[in-house]
Amino acid sequence: MSKTISVIGLGLIGGSMALDLKKSGFASKIIGVDKSKFHEKQAMELSIVNTIMPIEEAIRASDLTILSTPVDASMKLLPHILDILPSNSVLMDVGSTKSSLIEKVKDHPNRKFYVPSHPMAGTEYSGPSAAFHGLFKDRAAIICNSEDSFPKAVHLVSEVYDHLGSRLILMDAEAHDEHVGYVSHLSHAISYALAVSVLEKEKDDAAIFNLASGGFASTVRLAKSSVDMWLPIFEQNSKYILPILDTYLDKLTEFKSYLERGEMEHLYEFIKEANRINDKLEKK
Amino acid sequence: MSKTISVIGLGLIGGSMALDLKKSGFASKIIGVDKSKFHEKQAMELSIVNTIMPIEEAIRASDLTILSTPVDASMKLLPHILDILPSNSVLMDVGSTKSSLIEKVKDHPNRKFYVPSHPMAGTEYSGPSAAFHGLFKDRAAIICNSEDSFPKAVHLVSEVYDHLGSRLILMDAEAHDEHVGYVSHLSHAISYALAVSVLEKEKDDAAIFNLASGGFASTVRLAKSSVDMWLPIFEQNSKYILPILDTYLDKLTEFKSYLERGEMEHLYEFIKEANRINDKLEKK
Repeated sequence: MSKTISVIGLGLIGGSMALDLKKSGFASKIIGVDKSKFHEKQAMELSIVNTIMPIEEAIRASDLTILSTPVDASMKLLPHILDILPSNSVLMDVGSTKSSLIEKVKDHPNRKFYVPSHPMAGTEYSGPSAAFHGLFKDRAAIICNSEDSFPKAVHLVSEVYDHLGSRLILMDAEAHDEHVGYVSHLSHAISYALAVSVLEKEKDDAAIFNLASGGFASTVRLAKSSVDMWLPIFEQNSKYILPILDTYLDKLTEFKSYLERGEMEHLYEFIKEANRINDKLEKK
Repeated sequence: MSKTISVIGLGLIGGSMALDLKKSGFASKIIGVDKSKFHEKQAMELSIVNTIMPIEEAIRASDLTILSTPVDASMKLLPHILDILPSNSVLMDVGSTKSSLIEKVKDHPNRKFYVPSHPMAGTEYSGPSAAFHGLFKDRAAIICNSEDSFPKAVHLVSEVYDHLGSRLILMDAEAHDEHVGYVSHLSHAISYALAVSVLEKEKDDAAIFNLASGGFASTVRLAKSSVDMWLPIFEQNSKYILPILDTYLDKLTEFKSYLERGEMEHLYEFIKEANRINDKLEKK
């Protein structure tokens, strides 16, 4: 049965979901909502959505609403959407933090129609023009605290990820926030700091980027990621990110100390240990 | 005029150079030398080299010798190769550190036949099987302290990089070592530390890599890089890498402090500054 789906926030994630859900036939109609008129227009031009509506009208017309705004906007919108969610309609969000969103609506009478989720996919680009088919294919997608949503609602969201080609994982929200702190948020923090370090160096050395190779480009890639998306993620997940940053700073300081003291056998072991990442990522 | 070229060290860099120099016609014959019999055999099977010879015989038969071993091996081989270099033959190396190699042979009578260079290209893989055509195309290639080599020798090496499709940059060796400290060595250090941090976390959380997304894969990619290649680079360039690591640790600590103290306007500015990397890398 084909669905009418609203997508609130027509960026990389929401836009890419819309494209694939239309293509697979899971959505018969995608209604787009964005606070930016420019993005709404772009999403129409790029055939990401079938129509644009005001947010309340969109939600009332939909079987499923996908909330894909930055997580600070989601914090504000989530209770409001649940207030007006029509019966038998489901709300899912796709944000990179889960505990604070769940906490925000934990006593809401419509809480069980909300399914908190997080697809582990993205690029460093944003907006409707960044959206593309196949973004979620073979990536992990997480549903958090599924026992707090109606089974029918969880089932619908699992169908969404099935149509996107994702591997579904059920997980506790706190565990999720710590996990993604390690495998996503930390990568962004260290990439931002790398960019800032080299940009500062550039102030007295204008030619430094002439030498940048593929290795640098790869490590600094995430530093292009939108501040509007990432600042609220760091803020909402600081409980987990702060200790992870401490762990990371300790490890890099350990690396530095070995080099400083000429303890090359220890540095050798450190790098050998790091090399094990190869097997971990290949196996995925 | 087609050349006979020896490649000492049949890894990613030496192997890829051999492939392109043969293809372009610049080399009529590539003689391969490697301390590993297995790599020598592989390089023959993959048609990377035309023949294998013992090192002294190879050098004596060549118009140009390319030294493409890890930089600790290069430190040992460099004076020895200069000792036996035939007249009118040239030696170039391609290592990621330059000052210590140059210092090592500064008083050698054949110093002027040696051209220290560094192509800013590579991948996280190594060995002859990692070599491929086009690795150096459109990448920067650096020649250091060109005034200390015979103009004819510098010219020959510039022809090599021209045939590889690289953009040539002349640079002082000390400046080179600091520059690549920022845009290459630092990236490797922070990637190794990221891998070690997440691998440690995995010890009590076996499933963590299930969630790894493209962002993590990109940031941690360099952590796969061979310890045999990278340990001596860090050791030889520690004079520049140590202060760069301090700068980086300061920046990441600054990021953490803003988050810890809830100074979101400062964190916003930090990330906005990092975002400028986009223009820098696009312009290249």
